[in-house]
Amino acid sequence: MKTIASVALACVFVLPQLHAQENRLPKEIIVGKERAKTRKEIHLPEIDGYQLLKCDFHMHSVFSDGIVWPTLRIHEAWEDGLDALSITEHIEGQPARQGIEKGNHNFSFEIARREAALRGILLIRGAEITRSMPPGHLNALFLKDINPLDQKDYMKVFEEAHNQGAFIFWNHPGWGVKEIKWHAVHDTLYQKGWLNGIEVYNEFEWYPLALNWVNEKNLTLMANSDVHDVTERLYDFRTMSMRPMTLVLSRERTEEGLREALFARRTIAYFYNTLMGKEEWLEKFFHASIEIRPPHYTTSSHRVLHIRNKSDVPFLLHKADTEAERYPAKIELPAGQSVLVMIPAESGIHSVAYEVENAIVTPERKLRVKLF
Amino acid sequence: MKTIASVALACVFVLPQLHAQENRLPKEIIVGKERAKTRKEIHLPEIDGYQLLKCDFHMHSVFSDGIVWPTLRIHEAWEDGLDALSITEHIEGQPARQGIEKGNHNFSFEIARREAALRGILLIRGAEITRSMPPGHLNALFLKDINPLDQKDYMKVFEEAHNQGAFIFWNHPGWGVKEIKWHAVHDTLYQKGWLNGIEVYNEFEWYPLALNWVNEKNLTLMANSDVHDVTERLYDFRTMSMRPMTLVLSRERTEEGLREALFARRTIAYFYNTLMGKEEWLEKFFHASIEIRPPHYTTSSHRVLHIRNKSDVPFLLHKADTEAERYPAKIELPAGQSVLVMIPAESGIHSVAYEVENAIVTPERKLRVKLF
Amino acid sequence: MKTIASVALACVFVLPQLHAQENRLPKEIIVGKERAKTRKEIHLPEIDGYQLLKCDFHMHSVFSDGIVWPTLRIHEAWEDGLDALSITEHIEGQPARQGIEKGNHNFSFEIARREAALRGILLIRGAEITRSMPPGHLNALFLKDINPLDQKDYMKVFEEAHNQGAFIFWNHPGWGVKEIKWHAVHDTLYQKGWLNGIEVYNEFEWYPLALNWVNEKNLTLMANSDVHDVTERLYDFRTMSMRPMTLVLSRERTEEGLREALFARRTIAYFYNTLMGKEEWLEKFFHASIEIRPPHYTTSSHRVLHIRNKSDVPFLLHKADTEAERYPAKIELPAGQSVLVMIPAESGIHSVAYEVENAIVTPERKLRVKLF
Amino acid sequence: MKTIASVALACVFVLPQLHAQENRLPKEIIVGKERAKTRKEIHLPEIDGYQLLKCDFHMHSVFSDGIVWPTLRIHEAWEDGLDALSITEHIEGQPARQGIEKGNHNFSFEIARREAALRGILLIRGAEITRSMPPGHLNALFLKDINPLDQKDYMKVFEEAHNQGAFIFWNHPGWGVKEIKWHAVHDTLYQKGWLNGIEVYNEFEWYPLALNWVNEKNLTLMANSDVHDVTERLYDFRTMSMRPMTLVLSRERTEEGLREALFARRTIAYFYNTLMGKEEWLEKFFHASIEIRPPHYTTSSHRVLHIRNKSDVPFLLHKADTEAERYPAKIELPAGQSVLVMIPAESGIHSVAYEVENAIVTPERKLRVKLF
Repeated sequence: MKTIASVALACVFVLPQLHAQENRLPKEIIVGKERAKTRKEIHLPEIDGYQLLKCDFHMHSVFSDGIVWPTLRIHEAWEDGLDALSITEHIEGQPARQGIEKGNHNFSFEIARREAALRGILLIRGAEITRSMPPGHLNALFLKDINPLDQKDYMKVFEEAHNQGAFIFWNHPGWGVKEIKWHAVHDTLYQKGWLNGIEVYNEFEWYPLALNWVNEKNLTLMANSDVHDVTERLYDFRTMSMRPMTLVLSRERTEEGLREALFARRTIAYFYNTLMGKEEWLEKFFHASIEIRPPHYTTSSHRVLHIRNKSDVPFLLHKADTEAERYPAKIELPAGQSVLVMIPAESGIHSVAYEVENAIVTPERKLRVKLF
Repeated sequence: MKTIASVALACVFVLPQLHAQENRLPKEIIVGKERAKTRKEIHLPEIDGYQLLKCDFHMHSVFSDGIVWPTLRIHEAWEDGLDALSITEHIEGQPARQGIEKGNHNFSFEIARREAALRGILLIRGAEITRSMPPGHLNALFLKDINPLDQKDYMKVFEEAHNQGAFIFWNHPGWGVKEIKWHAVHDTLYQKGWLNGIEVYNEFEWYPLALNWVNEKNLTLMANSDVHDVTERLYDFRTMSMRPMTLVLSRERTEEGLREALFARRTIAYFYNTLMGKEEWLEKFFHASIEIRPPHYTTSSHRVLHIRNKSDVPFLLHKADTEAERYPAKIELPAGQSVLVMIPAESGIHSVAYEVENAIVTPERKLRVKLF
Repeated sequence: MKTIASVALACVFVLPQLHAQENRLPKEIIVGKERAKTRKEIHLPEIDGYQLLKCDFHMHSVFSDGIVWPTLRIHEAWEDGLDALSITEHIEGQPARQGIEKGNHNFSFEIARREAALRGILLIRGAEITRSMPPGHLNALFLKDINPLDQKDYMKVFEEAHNQGAFIFWNHPGWGVKEIKWHAVHDTLYQKGWLNGIEVYNEFEWYPLALNWVNEKNLTLMANSDVHDVTERLYDFRTMSMRPMTLVLSRERTEEGLREALFARRTIAYFYNTLMGKEEWLEKFFHASIEIRPPHYTTSSHRVLHIRNKSDVPFLLHKADTEAERYPAKIELPAGQSVLVMIPAESGIHSVAYEVENAIVTPERKLRVKLF
Repeated sequence: MKTIASVALACVFVLPQLHAQENRLPKEIIVGKERAKTRKEIHLPEIDGYQLLKCDFHMHSVFSDGIVWPTLRIHEAWEDGLDALSITEHIEGQPARQGIEKGNHNFSFEIARREAALRGILLIRGAEITRSMPPGHLNALFLKDINPLDQKDYMKVFEEAHNQGAFIFWNHPGWGVKEIKWHAVHDTLYQKGWLNGIEVYNEFEWYPLALNWVNEKNLTLMANSDVHDVTERLYDFRTMSMRPMTLVLSRERTEEGLREALFARRTIAYFYNTLMGKEEWLEKFFHASIEIRPPHYTTSSHRVLHIRNKSDVPFLLHKADTEAERYPAKIELPAGQSVLVMIPAESGIHSVAYEVENAIVTPERKLRVKLF
């Protein structure tokens, strides 16, 4: 069987015609170059001393209905700059695929584990409990053994997951239903402490009602890809800077750190250049990303400010202050770049409010920031 | 299980913040958009009334040592503009992977068949006979049933393949060996008509010695990806216009057309912007791609010509005519574009010879063309 | 003075480190490579035997308030695939710039003429008559001498232009005004035959009211860049396939052909992937671009069609037929690519109507096409 | 005259068809969006407490033989992340162009000054003394008035420049000559202190012999674009991360800081992903850019290291230590990314030497670094 024995870290490609040119006398083998496998390092600020761990807790491989081998999920995650992931195969209805063996629900985790360790990626053992609605689909993370969850009565499944110490969240509450609804069983799970979070974002959709539930019931906000195909085939990276992810505000880059943070509800959802979460976190994220600095070029009527966005998240601001007439109506702050902004030389206003269009606190409310 | 029910053909992405904006009163579900799945249509000329079918006859899935489900190979091929492919799992040493069932070597073909039919892609049933060198690895195409090839004595395997009507070619003759060599067994196979072609290109390598064998022994020239990973992860499409492929000069776009053309040795190898093959085909390819047209802007000393390359293959020309002093030393003809070239107003020379750097006839010889 | 003596047509870049490597013994000069100057060849269909000439009839250089030398406009136009252009400096208020000589309004044309001839680009002598509204700014094309247009009374200016045989159109009627309005003077000009066309598109704006005037008064539809900066700095080519342009349906690629077609009102506006014009032309454009071909893969319930868009203009279709339930609501046809579309196996409907979102006939109406 | 009144900082483009859709009742004006003008912030390390100022000290506008207005040079520089620039028009043979006024050599500086101040860019008054070889072309920076340099005797020109406090360097010593040579006049200038630096890189060329002179004679190393066209049209940014520049190790981001550093010879040349300069600076640059960090995944035979390149300069390393057999022969460290490297679990060697292919100390010698 052919395997790639040595991982070439090539990015300067040597063109074949150059080879050919060097070899007017025939050589027996002329070796080309592989595409580089490199990790994109994502720049995000620290908040209150917490690291922002970049995580995706919902995805599949050929061991349920995905179309890739589990190790590819590790390669993608490492290259995309993630810190942690979980391959959450559907427990029910296995095997989903012709030619795949039945029996061990821990296969994906076990197969991918070595690749994760080698790259310093946190691989969380997890699974998707897959029932018709209600209760729908829920993911359990931090499991010790997935096999005992393969049983008929779903309340027993949740109990088993909970007993293993699992963090449990409800997936894509609006997927495949006519009406998105908090059912009695969700309330039961919630009361028992067996429902800890909810996806406000899944694959290409976000659910405003789920965001309300998160805020009202103090649940943990989750945003995951639910990727079945190859990640770079699923998302169009011309239209977003990074794949969707759950940003976890963690004390440390460990499984235990993640666990503590998830149960403590310290997360921000990130998808399609949009942040979503508690106002407090979003505000700190924004201010830690932005630097307003000279030139403070001044004319009799105007000052020119230089605003730099140090993070890899772009911001789009709209003026929310109708009295501040001569201030720009809109300010775009692309990731990792600077812009110039012209404001009045002297303001009678102490500070001007802007709404951050891509920072969502509730379905009705965006983050507001004071600038200048 | 979640599947994508309807294939959205979206390419204009509607940003989430716009959705949010439209929905200040919370909506229950807001749907985003998938990345478009579209087919790149490759422009290649016709030659002598033959279509140039774009083919890849060597690749793997999880049913041997690849990391993707067989259907992905069809999706990739369709999107990349291919006409035909074969998923050629290793026959020996199955199953290669934990969790994959043993038994049926036709699995890959059977699983992928419907996706191929739906897209009008020619899926050729094939397999890789995988032995240590000699004879090394060989692919058999146009098989009727792969299972009978799973037997110990490799001469019997080739006999069985041949009896099924297979076209058989030797893969990557220089891979994993200290010395690339035509062994006695290759001669035996060749004499029996059981060795019909040879890969001069595989994945990232090309083999000058194999090109000599093709020319000397009148074998069919093959160029294949041997992809195990995802194709767009394997190749860096910033450095090449298309994935490596075997161009088959076929009378018709059918399996029978392919078969006839392969046995008749009508192929051109294409990899990393380089064409390789019989001088006759390369010359016709070049001239059918290039159009020299006005402006014939003329000064007392110079004429300016407009040269258009209508094909998706770029050409790089170097002057081979040392007497033609005032002609450009180098002419680049990017795919699908035009360039201006300045030549003397009146030449004492009837035509000027250029060597096409990326059109290889033998390891020592490039295509020569007459221009102007 | 340093000038570039020979235009290298390089696109394969040879990396400096390779040079350095080749030159462990110091060489005196090591020459690198320039960026290739190549022409993008745009694919547009022919309509009723007319060529679609790609034109931009409104732009500036340092000889009014632009920031580039006139020759750059030729280089840009050639590289962008245009057939014709006019550098239309403001006549009034010259010189606009410190350090620029006053006197000859034909400077731009005369300076750029040789570069245009050398590239086979049609350079039309034109100028912008620049008055406050009304009448606002108007361009005159096909002038013989611009200098006589530099006089105070604008009616005399238009008379002079008309006497020189000019085609005259009103520029950006909605720019810099509170209300877009057809003034008495426009009517006078129109009655005299001194107002032949109107820009429905300029730089980044389009004017629905101007489109109505074009339709009601039978004027020629124009779309121009009005570029002052460098074209590739003005437009973001990640969001459009080509720069804005006026497509002229011309019998031949000559100045006379252009003239005849402009006076005969045979134009289509093209900007930001959007076509605008007479329904008849748009319909023919669409059908000449689109090819529906096999696979006609058929199941008991569905057929799969392969739709190819041969042109460099993408199309976005929305279903307009509410009764055709099982037909796709939306079909995207990216430029130069193919998509698959699934439709019912047997339709009780003869053909299904789609609205082409990016083909505008009137401000209220899009092109409708029948498919399947 | 039409000018752009307000600088829109747009990067999210709103498609015209969406506008049209929103406006089924015709609106009079529909405004689109301009392409964003943003500054790319370049990440380079500090060295010994010096900032690395990103500078280009050689370029032209229409006031000599360039093709752009001087203000465009400021816009480009700001967008490209530069800190300082000089527009160095040819003094001799003015005016070079039809339609440009003769007389004031300070025009370019005066026209561009306000745009520079507004953006916080250091604009250095400079000019190119343009004679045939010898002495060839030389740039004088930090001039107070360029006009007195317009005189016949070039020694008087240099004296005047020197008396104004100028820093003087020899441009492209190998351009347009058959042999690159240090002439008697260069020696005279050098002895008088009127020759302070030399371009080892200009536009697309670098000059190994000039690098030797820099090292032998203790001159300041310069690398400049000498751009006449638009910068983004000159260079192909698919093949380099940044435009060529002189990196000045400065105590502060002021004209005085630049001056002090240039006379003190603290510069690094940067072009086509290649650094050139004193070994000491290159070594510090490398080590300040690179971070070797866990995972230190260990098997019985191997350790896996994670190497991150925090700077925007990629590095390409080749093993220089022939005894270190099991260490990778080549390590690529792309800008802003991380790679994994596999090394032996236990080395008998204390550290392994690598040659940094793109860090040049002399024409014969690359930077050597110790890793692991």
